[in-house]
Amino acid sequence: MATVKLIQVKEDILADNSQAATSLRGDLRRKGVFLLNLMAAPGAGKTSLIRETAAQLSKDLRLAVMEADIDSTVDAEALIQSGVHAIQLHTGGLCHLDAAMVRQGLAELDLSAWDAVILENVGNLVCPAEFDTGAVKSVAILSVPEGDDKPLKYPLMFQTVDAVVVNKTDYLSLAAFDLIAFGDRVRRLNPMVPIFEVSCRTGDGLKPWMDWFQSAVREWIRG
Amino acid sequence: MATVKLIQVKEDILADNSQAATSLRGDLRRKGVFLLNLMAAPGAGKTSLIRETAAQLSKDLRLAVMEADIDSTVDAEALIQSGVHAIQLHTGGLCHLDAAMVRQGLAELDLSAWDAVILENVGNLVCPAEFDTGAVKSVAILSVPEGDDKPLKYPLMFQTVDAVVVNKTDYLSLAAFDLIAFGDRVRRLNPMVPIFEVSCRTGDGLKPWMDWFQSAVREWIRG
Repeated sequence: MATVKLIQVKEDILADNSQAATSLRGDLRRKGVFLLNLMAAPGAGKTSLIRETAAQLSKDLRLAVMEADIDSTVDAEALIQSGVHAIQLHTGGLCHLDAAMVRQGLAELDLSAWDAVILENVGNLVCPAEFDTGAVKSVAILSVPEGDDKPLKYPLMFQTVDAVVVNKTDYLSLAAFDLIAFGDRVRRLNPMVPIFEVSCRTGDGLKPWMDWFQSAVREWIRG
Repeated sequence: MATVKLIQVKEDILADNSQAATSLRGDLRRKGVFLLNLMAAPGAGKTSLIRETAAQLSKDLRLAVMEADIDSTVDAEALIQSGVHAIQLHTGGLCHLDAAMVRQGLAELDLSAWDAVILENVGNLVCPAEFDTGAVKSVAILSVPEGDDKPLKYPLMFQTVDAVVVNKTDYLSLAAFDLIAFGDRVRRLNPMVPIFEVSCRTGDGLKPWMDWFQSAVREWIRG
């Protein structure tokens, strides 16, 4: 049956990928470069969070961005217009990035020029969670209009990340989003994960996120 | 290389699936049952649109719902509480439904009791677009907070559907969403596709969507 075939091959690929990811992380460690894997559903605000992070931290960190999409270059273009060094990867229709694709992308950047690279994964709460990209840390963004039930429906995403960002808190007055219920659902999957409540539009709540990101980079670079 | 292996198997699976989907559509035709495949990113309002559609059309159509998710039964429970006949499918971690899984789900419904079944696909703008579910019509929902650039990033989704619904138009005052630019981007991929602008919360704009859905069901049942 078609389904069984897919699962079988996926297991092989996941094992190959896990090795490739570990090897990539080793290279990043030797080169002293931090890599963040940023995941979210379409439209949750991945590019906006990257833009804000780059704007606020660019005086302290040399930061580059790899945008991944099925198609288009709109995100990389928007970042470049904001003065961020960004390149665009196309996945050839695939719904996620694997470590080999990330290594290919990183080869296009001169790693000695950067302290940290942010990888914006394909907009998707399912597939990206299954593939170790080789990143040092992974983060999931959930935006308020998407609803507080998402950890129930996409548990692997919330289980595997090192931090969760709730974006678009400026929509809280319009949306029926229960921050406490959301936090409980996330922590049932991932008890110690930090959750940052932010609005990339208004700038609210971004400071704790910036502190977390900067600490994670420094800890990695210091080795 | 891992990526090449995945693509190869996907081609086999897509060919098998296409046959299974055609055969399922033949069975639905013989039984006089309409099947709608509803796709969207997480949180775009698939369940809300189903709830509104069921509420408004239940006196004219016998309507059942199949909810598909990686995990949880929250959507089916919410619909059942609204008086809708709904069952829940779990995909075992897969990011889409194929025709074999849909056939399995339909076997749990007594098809002679229903005129139309709405299938709520996994929340995802990538994978579900690649798999013919056997549905008579496919529809994509995009919600205003997700942004008007999504047809550029997920072209296959907007290319393959029979109708597009823009939900959460009550957010238009807060979000920088250009309805005309969005329409242009969709029509470049899918020139004749109808686009319905609705708010499931306020009820605005739902009438043309209901008319389209009801006509599609009647046309299919009439044969």
